[in-house]
Formats: sequence, C-alpha cells, structure tokens
Amino acid sequence: MPGNPSGLTWDLIQEARERIAGKVSVTPVLTSTTLDARAGARLYFKCENFQKCGAFKARGATNAVFALSESQARRGVATHSSGNHAAALARAARLRGIPAYIVMPHNTVQTKRDAVRRYGGEITYCESTLAAREDSARQLIAATGAILVHPYDDLAVMAGQATLAVELLTQVPDLDLILCPVGGGGLLSGTAVAAKTLKPAIRVIGVEPAGADDAARSLRAGRILPSLNPDTIADGLRSALGERPFAEIRRRVDDITTVSDESIVRAMRQLWEVMKIIVEPSGAVPYAALLAERPELCGLRIGVVLSGGNLDLERLPWTPGAPAP
Amino acid sequence: MPGNPSGLTWDLIQEARERIAGKVSVTPVLTSTTLDARAGARLYFKCENFQKCGAFKARGATNAVFALSESQARRGVATHSSGNHAAALARAARLRGIPAYIVMPHNTVQTKRDAVRRYGGEITYCESTLAAREDSARQLIAATGAILVHPYDDLAVMAGQATLAVELLTQVPDLDLILCPVGGGGLLSGTAVAAKTLKPAIRVIGVEPAGADDAARSLRAGRILPSLNPDTIADGLRSALGERPFAEIRRRVDDITTVSDESIVRAMRQLWEVMKIIVEPSGAVPYAALLAERPELCGLRIGVVLSGGNLDLERLPWTPGAPAP
Repeated sequence: MPGNPSGLTWDLIQEARERIAGKVSVTPVLTSTTLDARAGARLYFKCENFQKCGAFKARGATNAVFALSESQARRGVATHSSGNHAAALARAARLRGIPAYIVMPHNTVQTKRDAVRRYGGEITYCESTLAAREDSARQLIAATGAILVHPYDDLAVMAGQATLAVELLTQVPDLDLILCPVGGGGLLSGTAVAAKTLKPAIRVIGVEPAGADDAARSLRAGRILPSLNPDTIADGLRSALGERPFAEIRRRVDDITTVSDESIVRAMRQLWEVMKIIVEPSGAVPYAALLAERPELCGLRIGVVLSGGNLDLERLPWTPGAPAP
Repeated sequence: MPGNPSGLTWDLIQEARERIAGKVSVTPVLTSTTLDARAGARLYFKCENFQKCGAFKARGATNAVFALSESQARRGVATHSSGNHAAALARAARLRGIPAYIVMPHNTVQTKRDAVRRYGGEITYCESTLAAREDSARQLIAATGAILVHPYDDLAVMAGQATLAVELLTQVPDLDLILCPVGGGGLLSGTAVAAKTLKPAIRVIGVEPAGADDAARSLRAGRILPSLNPDTIADGLRSALGERPFAEIRRRVDDITTVSDESIVRAMRQLWEVMKIIVEPSGAVPYAALLAERPELCGLRIGVVLSGGNLDLERLPWTPGAPAP
C-alpha cells in the first residue's frame, strides 16, 4: 500500500506483528448476550485490558524498542505519557535490557506510576500540559542521549498499535465496523490502515470524550485544531492529536463521534457489572458510543476496542470520595 | 463408577454436560505470568465469573431444572439461597418457561437480588439462619407445590457443578491440583468426583473461609459438624455443609484449607488489579490459599476455580464506607 500519507505501510505492520509476537499477548475477544441485546447489535469486545501492562500500548512500545538498532538501543529510550505508554515502554526497555526515562504529569494516577516503577523506568514529573511534557522530555533527552519514543506520533508505535486490528480481524473476520478510542490518534490511525487494508469495506469510527474532542473537531476542519484544556475522566485520551496519525485518520476514518463523561462512567459500569471485567474510563469510551439509540448500527457486527484496564481501584467514579464525572 | 456414597455417578455428570450444553457458557481459562511468579506455580484460572448469571451455579441449577419431567416442571421450582444459586435457578426456570420461587436472607447483596428479579424469580425474604431459610422454603413449597432445588444437597445440582471440572480438564488436561471453594460442598464434591474419575492422580483441595470453617472441621472429625454463626466476607460460602456433598468430600477430597478474610480481600484485589477481572469474595477464596508461602505447591500446575463475580460495586472492601473485612 504505497503512498500512505503518514508512511505507515502494510509491510511495517506485518514486520511489527512478527517483531512483537511472543513479547505481547494475543488478547481474547469476549461477547455478551446481555450487552448485545441492549445495543441491538453483535458486539465483539477486544480485551486489551488483558494485554501486557494492562493496555494496547504494549504493542506500539514493544515494536518501537525492538526496532532500534543495537547502537540506538544502547542509548536507552525516553517518552512523555499520561501512563499506559510509559509503563509499556519501561517494560519493553527492560525486555531489551536498556534504560527507559519517563516524563509523567504529576497528576498521573497512582496505578500507572507504580507500573512504570515496577518495570524499572526512571520517572521525571512535570506539569500536565502538552508543552510542559514536551519540554521536560527534550531536556531529559539532551541530558541522557536517549531515543524519544513518542506515545503516538511515531511510525513504529503506530505500526505496533495497528497489530490490534489485524489480530481482531483474524479472530472475527466478518466485522462490519470497529469502534476505537481516540486520544493522540496512534491506535485509531493504525486500526484504520490495518482494517481497511484487510477488508476495504469495513467501517472504522473513532470515539472521543466530549471534553477532549480535538480529533473530532480536527476531522471536521480538515486540519489539526489544538487541544484546549482537555477535561475528561478518560485520562488516557487527553493528549493532543498527532500529525502522522491525523494524516491517516483524515484519509481513512469514517467518522469520529464524541461521548459525555457521564456516558463513559455508565459504559464502564455496565462492562464491569455485566462482563465482570475491569476497563478503565478511556477503555470504556467506544462502548459509551453504543449507549445512545443508534438505529443505523442495528444488527451490525461491531468490534469494540476495550483499550485498557488500569485505574486506581480506591477511586472509582461511583464510590464516595471519588472525582465526580 | 458404581458405589459412590452420594449416588453421584460419572453417567450423571455426562448427562448433565449434554443437558446444559448451549444453555450455559464454556468459560475461559486465563493465566497470568505475574501471578505465576508470585505463587511459584503455573496457575490456570477457571473463570466462572464469566458464566451465565456470573457464577458456576448456572451449571447445577440448569441441570436440575431441565432434568425435571414435564409434570414436575409444571409445578415450578423453589429454593433458598444467598444469591447466586437463586439467580441461576430463576434463569433456568425462565429458559424452561416455569415459575421460580426464591427464599433469600434479607441481608443478601443488592446485585444478587436484582439478578433474581431480572429473571422473573419471585422472592420471599427470611432471616439469614439456615433454620429460617429451610422453614421459609418449606412453607413456600407447601403453598405452591413447587419442586425444591436445593442449592447443593441435590444430586442433579452436584452433577451440574461437576461439569466445571470436566470442562477445565478438557481445556488444561495436565493439572496436578485443583483448588476449589467450599460452602455447602456442591461444587467441591462434584469437582472431586469428576476430576478423580478423569485423572485419578490429581489432587483436589477445598478452600474455606476461616470464619465459616464447618467443612474443614467436619473433614477432620469424619462427620458433619454444625456451622455456628458463620462470619465471613465471602457471602457465598456461609452455607452449612450438605450430607450428600460431604459423603464425596470425605471420600475423595485430599484436604480442606482455611483462609482469613484479610487474605480473601487481598486475593480479590490482586485478581482485580493484575488480571483485570471482577471476582467476588467467595470466588477469590481459592487464590487466597496461594498468598501464603506454600513450598509444597512449588512448580505445580494448579487449576484455581474463580467461582463467581457478583458483588455490589459501591461497597468494595477497600473503599470508604464498605464493611471492614
């Protein structure tokens, strides 16, 4: 598939699959007759909450780390991330035996900090703005010589995330539609390229929190609009849309729909109660899009990407003392 | 296998498998490298929290309801249960199109009451003692003519629960040991008969809350000792040991070990955090037995029965306002 605007080719995705095989999990697809009945569609939940490090980010980070040459790898890797990419990068670096330097916003949830430490990543804290993150990462790289592995605006990362859709379509070949969360766009762009290469007629729809809707607005505007004070419970999706991902999203994604924080919490709770699985707010975002009446989706076979399951179990959105949605 | 003291034969178990096929789920077996490393063993988690109604009880109740003759079935079914059996019986009765009358202790958790109502079961509340449950059930049966389906002291129920071990040993044939929770003994006795028929060398160990240890004491004494004021967070395991189950447990179960409520909560939390699955306190009991140092289990392949996943998500044992373990 030559001429992809981001440079993300089918070959890169295939290489990623081979490179990360055995280093990340093949995650199960779960179904629920109860949730099918509620949605009026056949739902295939791709459980990346069961992925290594508890999120799909293990795919992209592992691909990026193992794609480095020996001399690059020796310098170590660095990134800025709200959490899941950070843990995934720390884990991949440990697998390869190289250092990982992580810049994290100081308001990152405890579970995600602990995960980075568990894998031996070195954390530097910063303010939660994109500018502060990028600035801290630049300083860190200047000081250590480490290679930046951007959480989403990076071809190797996008190729790694794209393996999710290849795997899903191997498990459930006849999907009509994939619903995928969008933050920086790494997963959504990879999903769109992989899914539409394998199955040109499939639809791919991004789902984004209304409080961090820069991707939806950018898709409508035809150019990247800034992410202004993102405010959503879906902490993994506060990032600003990346250039490379947007190039694919613009070309291949059928639509981006937004969901309220209230519906994200309802979706999360339904997934916990009915499916007995732990999904973080960002991971519940695609299913939240199915809580509203959607006659156009009736009877379809829909892949729903549950992107991760990391959150503080003491601070659930429905227990006393937790942040209101 | 003639001469089983309870009357539970391999034929009854095979019939149960055929009878309930398609009416209950084949549940997945999940593994975790993190928990394997902590336990020093290979753990195969049998996820009955993903079963219909969220617990293994769907197996026994479905078998019992569909084993009834037409004329029996028309009278409806009745039971007393702390919850999961009740919901499972209500669901099975609805599948067969007959009424279900349920006696429940008034302190049953909300989630479990809701489940019974969702399936159309008619609830009568009673005190939480065994005597009060049995008395209410007797009155209800006298008034309605319904057939009692005891939650565990019933051959058809035991045969249904036994299908879990048959399924697990089909999925993971070379287990050395199965750890199984014990309350009334229906699951443990069925597991022991099925597993030891298929694989005579396998060990089956029951795990019981220390605050409801009548099965452990009864096994040591060689006769059923009463359950006195059971007090444990594992609400599904407060029931008194049944006669028929005990006959098999005494003959076939290698040991019954007890765990503290504190370790049950720790086990539950580890399963949630690491495996991203929702397991109720009773369901976490077998894994709780692996939190202590157990050099004798080192390197074994262990089936760990996660028996259910129903609990009030507002009242988690580690959030403010929840009951202390």
